Order: sequence, then structure tokens, then C-alpha cells
Amino acid sequence: MELLKEYNPYLEYKDGELYMEGVSLKELAQEYGTPLYVYSASYIRDRIREYRKAFPEALVCYAVKANFNPHIIQIAKEEGAGADIVSGGELHACLLAGMDPKKIVYAGVGKTIQELEYALREDILMFNVESLMELDVLNELAGRLGRKARVAIRVNPDVDPKTHPYISTGMKKSKFGVDIKTAKEVYEYARSLKNIEVVGIHCHIGSQILDISPYIEAVQKVVELYEYLENKGFNIQYLDVGGGLGIKYKPEQAAPHPSDLAQAIGPILKGVRARLVLEPGRSIVGNAGLLITQVQFLKDKGHKHFIIVDAGMNDLVRPAMYEAYHHIVPVVYKDTGYLKADVVGPICETGDFLALDREIQRVERGDYLAVLSAGAYGFAMSSQYNARPRACEVLVEKGQVRVIRERESYEDLFEKARV
Amino acid sequence: MELLKEYNPYLEYKDGELYMEGVSLKELAQEYGTPLYVYSASYIRDRIREYRKAFPEALVCYAVKANFNPHIIQIAKEEGAGADIVSGGELHACLLAGMDPKKIVYAGVGKTIQELEYALREDILMFNVESLMELDVLNELAGRLGRKARVAIRVNPDVDPKTHPYISTGMKKSKFGVDIKTAKEVYEYARSLKNIEVVGIHCHIGSQILDISPYIEAVQKVVELYEYLENKGFNIQYLDVGGGLGIKYKPEQAAPHPSDLAQAIGPILKGVRARLVLEPGRSIVGNAGLLITQVQFLKDKGHKHFIIVDAGMNDLVRPAMYEAYHHIVPVVYKDTGYLKADVVGPICETGDFLALDREIQRVERGDYLAVLSAGAYGFAMSSQYNARPRACEVLVEKGQVRVIRERESYEDLFEKARV
Ligand SMILES: Cc1ncc(COP(=O)(O)O)c(C=O)c1O
Ligand SMILES: Cc1ncc(COP(=O)(O)O)c(C=O)c1O
Repeated sequence: MELLKEYNPYLEYKDGELYMEGVSLKELAQEYGTPLYVYSASYIRDRIREYRKAFPEALVCYAVKANFNPHIIQIAKEEGAGADIVSGGELHACLLAGMDPKKIVYAGVGKTIQELEYALREDILMFNVESLMELDVLNELAGRLGRKARVAIRVNPDVDPKTHPYISTGMKKSKFGVDIKTAKEVYEYARSLKNIEVVGIHCHIGSQILDISPYIEAVQKVVELYEYLENKGFNIQYLDVGGGLGIKYKPEQAAPHPSDLAQAIGPILKGVRARLVLEPGRSIVGNAGLLITQVQFLKDKGHKHFIIVDAGMNDLVRPAMYEAYHHIVPVVYKDTGYLKADVVGPICETGDFLALDREIQRVERGDYLAVLSAGAYGFAMSSQYNARPRACEVLVEKGQVRVIRERESYEDLFEKARV
Repeated sequence: MELLKEYNPYLEYKDGELYMEGVSLKELAQEYGTPLYVYSASYIRDRIREYRKAFPEALVCYAVKANFNPHIIQIAKEEGAGADIVSGGELHACLLAGMDPKKIVYAGVGKTIQELEYALREDILMFNVESLMELDVLNELAGRLGRKARVAIRVNPDVDPKTHPYISTGMKKSKFGVDIKTAKEVYEYARSLKNIEVVGIHCHIGSQILDISPYIEAVQKVVELYEYLENKGFNIQYLDVGGGLGIKYKPEQAAPHPSDLAQAIGPILKGVRARLVLEPGRSIVGNAGLLITQVQFLKDKGHKHFIIVDAGMNDLVRPAMYEAYHHIVPVVYKDTGYLKADVVGPICETGDFLALDREIQRVERGDYLAVLSAGAYGFAMSSQYNARPRACEVLVEKGQVRVIRERESYEDLFEKARV
């Protein structure tokens, strides 16, 4: 029970039933059906406040990619955060949420003309530029629109974030950014472009980082570059060190706190006058959310037990995609002992699992399970694979419930594919 | 050039430009934008005809999961195929396509009450039942609706299909079906249920199977069970051996033809009076389709070249998910030599690639590339990750073009999540 609080302090069992911010998850499941994503607004607020407290001068830009529901972005906005985006769609979401474009930074290796134009017209704070070619395109486009594009160059500090290879983004062999060694030339080139205003340095080393030390290494390299550029007469106003702080997925994991990060990189940033920008995604919303799923069938294959639930890899792809661990707890606690089982979904693939060989409370058909830590890269990566309508998302706050995304219907699946 | 025909005979270069069924892919890309899925209707028709010719007595049920666009299902229907479904959404798609429910078989480990009821009311041909518990639920529900459910039991022949572990579905440790050793008891149990009519045996050993031999082993086991059951007085009318025939993804791969399968399993099926059912998905639509993507940026990192395109893992997840190989060819052939590069998408993950270290024609910003073999498990698995609207799908047939799914807009992304 204490363990639960380590995931999210707004989660608790009352008389054996799981509640989030005072709302019964069983009742939510019964009312809105399953699979159901539930998020705690207060948790999101707390996390942003922690970041803002740990970094009082910084601009905290919520990384929308983790969960691009406009209602979630709205909470970030209410707490004074900006946004880090990676597409025109995310910009659109931010604008729907009422986010001030002047607090939006935009990274991404494949920004299209339409996207660049959209962001230029909205006059976002800063383009985190990933290549020389992007600089040229942006310069030309800005000229055509009679604007100046504020840019940071995304540099690749080439440190190993010690996380899943798919989400290690700051290494030399990655598609992101420019090598920090060649960055100086890129900065000179950027400065030579008429419609480009060089205002920052950007880096992002990866995601789900539990050990702070790679940040130290990365920020050191970035500060070196900063000093070099300042000496060369650049006016670097923003030092954007990205996101990536890890969260607790496994019971034995301890996640770093924003203040740990502040403590680690604060001293390195001492002499830096540029404003710090942070881009946390997962550490804001990851443990704000969970996915409720209902047990459909139990299967005893003798050598193996299966708990078949109604959430599949289309709803939460992380286990299939990254072999990610998600802790699973019963929505109604029963004193029925434990069983080792695979928790699997209804999709026609062996890769469709939520947990393998997991010690889990014995359940019956109809019981609800809560898949924890599903707030980030959960719904955001969901699909309609197997023609499955996507889940409903609800937000709870101090006993109040708000549907922030309606469940899709069969009709919705074919809305764009009418016969 | 000859290689192209091995993927899809309706693909050809004319004056260095790629055409499908007489339609210029460059013009399609210009008209409908990218990323763009394009399918050849004639190819789909041919494949179904080949199956029907190789198995003249069989019911060929197109496995909708491979591509659940109703227009694609409609082609299958027009060619006399039935459908294999795995969800209520797929049933809905089939009905939209005008498919006769009497030609629909329904497998899936996690069928919900709503789905079972939907399928019972539509009176589909056969439920491929995956567990004892499902039998009970189906029996009870059928009773309540005053119907009889025709069922096959999905058995697990425990053969190794020698394919990717995520799509190996017929092994003992898998969540699918019942072990063939215990199947006899399950059949007896099913027969004891009032509202269940046992009509078939089902198995499906996996997907992307290039070596026919596992089919022989599986069908032998299934036929043994068939003979046993017939001796016990069951009236087995359908012997459903699933899908799974592999397709050519890599240039050096040769895919088996439906007639190869017929030749291999035909002799084993000699004495069987039950009607054969087949559930091909990938081998029907896989090489019918391709994904056109536009080069956004080129990046030369010295040690590594990147071609950044506008299709990401949200559009085609197979490379990220299964490390799948997709052959990539230029839409406009140029005599500019080759380069070794990673072809990567705009998504904020290192796992977002279409090809790694691939020898590929030198391209420029704005050029189009065609990602082959993308008709199956392509759009069907696509997501809106990074708030990216999903691609448009067009169908070409003998020079005619039809949009079968409109491109999503930014507004569509938030249709269900209004603020
Ligand atoms: C540039 C950038 N910033 C921020 C993030 C957010 O990372 P996290 O959710 O791990 O904080 C990502 C994640 O991919 C990213 O690519
Ligand atoms: C039961 C069943 N039948 C048919 C198929 C279709 O397989 P394929 O597309 O490889 O032909 C699948 C794929 O997962 C399946 O699970």
C-alpha cells in the first residue's frame, strides 16, 4: 500500500478499493467502460511546481509528446509551464490549450515546410534546429514571411544516458542534432543567415534516465559551448537541456526528483546568464496516469497461466515496443493470494502483453486491474490496430471527474474511410 | 527493375518514374500529399484468385487485421472471399464492406461480451474459440439470445513457424488456443454445452512464414484430431488452418505461392470431408501496398548519413517494432549513384527508422521514396504519435484512382478531446 504512494501520492486503497484523488476507480470503470485512461490533475500540478521550485528562473516546457491531450497541456499552462513540441499537431494542441506561443520550443528532425510556417506565423519562442539544411529552409521561409526565426542549435553531447536504445537520443550515431564538435561551425553559419536569430543551445540526451550523472556530463559540454559562443559574440539567451528524467516503473526503482537534477547541474550553470529551459515529459505525466482494464478470460495452460484483459498493445504499446515494465495492481483488493501469470491483451500477436510471468493477485473474470505509470507515452502512442476504437481518457481532480477524450466508436474508425 | 515485379507485377518504371497499375506515383504524391499509402486493387484480386485456384473447394477468409480498410475488404468480397476477424470493429468493417456474415470467422483471445453478442446477432459462420471460459460465456450468451453459436476450437499444434517471436502464435507457451493434447477434452466439453454447435477445428501457427514445412506438421496434427473427433461422432464441417503465408520483403527473399501450400498440405487433407478454411492476410495485401514518403532533410554526420523523410514509426511501425526490413525505391529514378544511409522519420525517438545502413539511391530534399510491402500491418498499426495526423490511403486499379481513406487533419486529432 505504501508502495502505491511512491508511484503517485494521490493513489490509495480505501476499504480495499483503489481511489485516485478521492475518486473510486471501480466506479469510473463502470461508468466509462474499459480500457480507460485516468489521470490525476493534482499530480501533474505538483510535478510542474516541483520543477519550477527546483529551477526558479528556468522556463519549464512540458514535453507534449508524452501526452498531447489538450486538457493535459492546459494544466501545464495553468501551472506556468511552457511547451516543448515536435510537430504541427502538437503546436495545434498547445494553441487549443491556450498556451502562449512565446513559451513554446520546437525540436524535431523532420519539420515540414507547413509545420515551420505554422510555427513562424505563431511566433513561437524558439526552433531547436537539427541540421544545416533545416537552417537554410527556415531562413528562406522566414524571409519569405518577413519574419525572423529564433533558433537554438540542437547539439549532440554524445553521452550515454543508459536507457533503452530507442530512447537514447543524444549519442553520436543518432539522427538528432549536430555533433557538438561541429556545432561551432553550425553556429557561425546560422549567424550568417539573414532571417535567423541565434538565441540558444539545445540538447536532449534521452528519456527515462534514472541516473543523473549523464546530465552532468552533457550540461558540462553544453556550458563549454556556451562560453565559447559568448566569447565569439553570440548572445545566447536560452540554454535548453531537454527532458528525460526517469520515473518509477518497477517497485524497486527510485526516480530522481527535479531537485536532484538541480543540485547536480546547478553548480555547472553558475556563471551562465542564459535562461535555462527544461523539457520534461514523462516525469510530469507518467505517474499521473494509469490504465484500467477488465479481465476478460483466465486461461490455465498447466505450464502457464494467462490473464486476458481488454487492453491491448494498441492501447499501451510500451511493453511490446520497449519490453517496458508496468506495475499492475487490482482495482479491488481481495485476499485471494497470488499467482504467476502473463497479463495479455486481445490483439492477435504474441507481442501483445502487459506483463510476463508476473506475480499478481488472483483475479476473476470481470475484475479490474490498474496498469500504473501509463500517463506518458501511453495514449499518445495508441493505435486502432485490430480495428479497436481507442480508449476514453478521464481527468480527476479533488473528487471531480472530467472526460478529456471520449471513447471512439466503431463508426469513428471508418469516418475517414466511408464506403 | 525486374526485382520490382517480384514484389508486385503492377509496379514498373516508365521513363524512370514509378507507376502502379498505370498511375504515376509522383503525381499521386503531389496530388494527395505524403505520407501516402497506395494499394493496387488488381494485385489483391490476383492473390485471392490464386488462393481460390489453389484451393478450389476452400473458403478463403481474408484476414482483415492485415488491413481493415472497408474498401480493401470490399475487394476481397468481390473476389468471393470471406473474412477472418479478431474484433467487433473488424466485424463492423466487414459489414460496411457488404461482406456476408456467413463467410466470417472470428478468432481472438479476448472477445468481449459486446463483441460476442454483435457477432451472434449477425450470425457469423464460426467462432474460433480460444479457451474453456470463452466457451462458457459464449454458451450462456447464445442461450440468452436464443441462438446457437457455431464454434471451432483453436488448437495449438505447437510447431515452430520460424518467424519473429511476436508473430509466432501456435506454440505451447503462447496465449492462443488450447494445447492440442487437451483439445479432445475441450471438444467433449463444448459438445456438452446446449447452445454451442461444434463445427470446426481452427489453428494458426504464425505470420510471415516463408518455409512451408511447419504447415505440414501443423496440418498433420490437425487432421489427426479431425479423425479422432469424427470417430467420436463429431460432425466437423470446417478445418480452418489459418493464415500466415509469408511475402517478399527483402530482395533476396522468395515467397511461397498459394499453390506451394496446396501442394504441401493437399495430400494430408485427402481423406478429409470437412471444408478447408484459409485466413491469409499479409499474403493478400502486403505487396499490394506501398508507402510514399517525401525526403525532408539530408544530414551528413561524417560517420553516418541520414535521409530524413516525412513518414515515421507512427505511419509504419514494423521496422521499430519487429526490426522489419522494407525495401525502399525511388519514385523517380535518377542516375546519381548510391549512398549508404539511415532512412529515418520525424518522430522523437531513435527507434523511428524505416531502414538502417541501407544502400540507397542518392536523393535530394523533396524527392519521393516508395517503401514497398507496406500493404499489410502498415496503416492498420498506425498511430497519431507525436500528434501526427494519419496518412491518406488511395487505391489504384487499371489507371483509376480512388481515395479510400482521407488524410486526417489537426482538427481530427482532437475531435474527441475538445477543450
Ligand atoms: C527533444 C525532446 N525533449 C523532451 C523530451 C521529453 O522526454 P521525457 O518525456 O523523457 O522527459 C523528448 C522525448 O523524446 C525529446 O525528444
Ligand atoms: C488467427 C489468425 N488468422 C490469420 C492471421 C493472418 O496472418 P497473415 O497476415 O500472416 O496471413 C492472423 C495474424 O495474426 C491470425 O492471428
